[in-house]
Amino acid sequence: MRFVYNDVAGSSLDRLSALSDGVFAFAMTLLVLDLHVPRVDGIHSEHDLWLALLAIWPRFTTYLMSFMTLGIFWVGQQTQLSFYDRVNRNYTWIQIGFLAVVAIVPFSTALLSEFITYRIALLVYWFNLLLLGSALFFGMAYAIRAGLTKEGMSDQLRTLFARRVLVSQGLYAFGALLCIFNTYWSIGFIILVQLNYLLAPKIPVLRDV
Amino acid sequence: MRFVYNDVAGSSLDRLSALSDGVFAFAMTLLVLDLHVPRVDGIHSEHDLWLALLAIWPRFTTYLMSFMTLGIFWVGQQTQLSFYDRVNRNYTWIQIGFLAVVAIVPFSTALLSEFITYRIALLVYWFNLLLLGSALFFGMAYAIRAGLTKEGMSDQLRTLFARRVLVSQGLYAFGALLCIFNTYWSIGFIILVQLNYLLAPKIPVLRDV
Amino acid sequence: MRFVYNDVAGSSLDRLSALSDGVFAFAMTLLVLDLHVPRVDGIHSEHDLWLALLAIWPRFTTYLMSFMTLGIFWVGQQTQLSFYDRVNRNYTWIQIGFLAVVAIVPFSTALLSEFITYRIALLVYWFNLLLLGSALFFGMAYAIRAGLTKEGMSDQLRTLFARRVLVSQGLYAFGALLCIFNTYWSIGFIILVQLNYLLAPKIPVLRDV
Amino acid sequence: MRFVYNDVAGSSLDRLSALSDGVFAFAMTLLVLDLHVPRVDGIHSEHDLWLALLAIWPRFTTYLMSFMTLGIFWVGQQTQLSFYDRVNRNYTWIQIGFLAVVAIVPFSTALLSEFITYRIALLVYWFNLLLLGSALFFGMAYAIRAGLTKEGMSDQLRTLFARRVLVSQGLYAFGALLCIFNTYWSIGFIILVQLNYLLAPKIPVLRDV
Repeated sequence: MRFVYNDVAGSSLDRLSALSDGVFAFAMTLLVLDLHVPRVDGIHSEHDLWLALLAIWPRFTTYLMSFMTLGIFWVGQQTQLSFYDRVNRNYTWIQIGFLAVVAIVPFSTALLSEFITYRIALLVYWFNLLLLGSALFFGMAYAIRAGLTKEGMSDQLRTLFARRVLVSQGLYAFGALLCIFNTYWSIGFIILVQLNYLLAPKIPVLRDV
Repeated sequence: MRFVYNDVAGSSLDRLSALSDGVFAFAMTLLVLDLHVPRVDGIHSEHDLWLALLAIWPRFTTYLMSFMTLGIFWVGQQTQLSFYDRVNRNYTWIQIGFLAVVAIVPFSTALLSEFITYRIALLVYWFNLLLLGSALFFGMAYAIRAGLTKEGMSDQLRTLFARRVLVSQGLYAFGALLCIFNTYWSIGFIILVQLNYLLAPKIPVLRDV
Repeated sequence: MRFVYNDVAGSSLDRLSALSDGVFAFAMTLLVLDLHVPRVDGIHSEHDLWLALLAIWPRFTTYLMSFMTLGIFWVGQQTQLSFYDRVNRNYTWIQIGFLAVVAIVPFSTALLSEFITYRIALLVYWFNLLLLGSALFFGMAYAIRAGLTKEGMSDQLRTLFARRVLVSQGLYAFGALLCIFNTYWSIGFIILVQLNYLLAPKIPVLRDV
Repeated sequence: MRFVYNDVAGSSLDRLSALSDGVFAFAMTLLVLDLHVPRVDGIHSEHDLWLALLAIWPRFTTYLMSFMTLGIFWVGQQTQLSFYDRVNRNYTWIQIGFLAVVAIVPFSTALLSEFITYRIALLVYWFNLLLLGSALFFGMAYAIRAGLTKEGMSDQLRTLFARRVLVSQGLYAFGALLCIFNTYWSIGFIILVQLNYLLAPKIPVLRDV
């Protein structure tokens, strides 16, 4: 029997999960490096420190937004993986690509919190969200075509992810568009969309997405 | 059968544990970045280096206090998760919120070790402790209501966590109040409370909490 | 019975996997620290920010190249470990050596992206690739000799890894040689080799390697 | 039945292993941050870069020494945990203390590579090694007393660890003492001891330790 590397490689679902949990955990924790502690030399009283903390307050907003982003996509990937018995080399590589986009989230978050009023920073952040959704969608599409899903679960997987990703990405794109007016509108809208998903759809039309 | 995303998502107890262990491990290791190695240019003799190391000594105190904090809450979350057979999407999100608070510990620790005599820095640290306890408590309350606990374990879970969290948070709040006099009193008191929990309650009245 | 430490130590396959996933996940995420957010003080308009982002564009190339590098060797190690029932102390140490080389990837990547036109930076990067391949090859050779592989799998393991590592290292070495002309040629060639492996060999002669 | 928190808390062997693997993996990867990429502004030719890389060469020595240190103690802890069926709250806390010492290794390594000719830096590093060994020893002693070891394994565990830890700590202490002459002697001796353990004892008298 001929033995080909690509038929055997990258077939461990457990290790793919473990690597993913590691990348997500570090990306989440790296976000905090963006909350710079105020510099000692400018602070001479409790009042000074209070003002300095107020000044970094906007960064907490982007911290929380990105933690929610990473949480949403971690839950999404975990849910997708729960549909499979096994993975193969190609699927593993789609997920490594997904993780490469996950690992960029701390960068695009830092860019946005440093340049919060700049449309380009917001569009970079949105583009990151778009890549996250696309990688998840593409992973699902491949897994169904390659027959990786558990017995009779392909339709459920497609039902769950197709509408979910399309609707959320539509909303994120609309949020990004709002930067025509103001980047704060975009950030506010994206946070609202995320809170809605996080708290389980409360907006009737999204309940079953 | 209708298949809804939120009924399936976030139901892996194993992956929630793995993500949590990753975030805790990284937060614990990030604490050490706060122990800055003295700068080469000011050091010309063994004596200079000795003085420089003595100068960063207070940072070891906050390092150890935060390591204990993270240890206590890691043990707490692990204990809580040991009561469940499974988790659901909502519980997973409560835990992601908990992890967002865990990931902030290196920030509030750095703030406190940089501004150790400032009450605001101490109150930020205490607020972090309060959020950690609240998230753990809220997770327990939700899990009991949602029936996630193993057969017949709800009462034990409530017994264990309710008093434990309330008493410890009461003690932390008292410790924070001591900053009216001096932040060192607060830090000393909080460390004593943590040591007591860590060594298993030796103070009679707390033994069975 | 005499009990010797070295007969018992380092025999957990699970923990070796978990440590490896941690080191890979962290090394992957550290790569992003190389994408420095532009400094606020030089940026006064959307156009300035756009130019600043274009200026860090080359760093995305090295980011992606190194993410692919780490992905390729993570898949390789995972595939190798899937051939074993158990590991022993010596094999564990070969893998710790492999991880020491993995952990250096963020350094050689940062060196290359900072000095992208310097041949020495490129040769350091190539040397890192060489060490990664050698450690993987040496691990395989040892495991076969020590009889760690699952029943009857030694030949398959050798078939898979021997040609694979030799051919890919040959290609990397050729890529490194191209720096005689220009480091960009080297980087371009190495990325093409990686993309070929990643997308599963499309170049006929490499298909079954 | 009365239910007490401390009887239930911290009893998961799996999660203790996962947290440990995380802390070790990050501590190992953090070591690389100590290999600073040379600063662009001083480098104008291949020759300049070559000299700059030669200048950071000593840091590779401390990098490798600390990677070996962490590897040795990771193998040690893994071996110890393989003797247990379960852990309890107190043992978990001893291990959290061990991890707090593990997480300091990147700091003491950075201190030593920055001040490689200073005896105090070397003694700090040695003290870190001493704490690592003590925590491992203390963990073993507690586990035996508390009856955590698998059926009939207590004696083997004691045999393995007691001599091992005592002899290696004796050698480390001797190495540290050599700094009376020169810190390089100490570093060289400690690296030789580590290489001996890593390659499995080759020095006859240590073979069965």
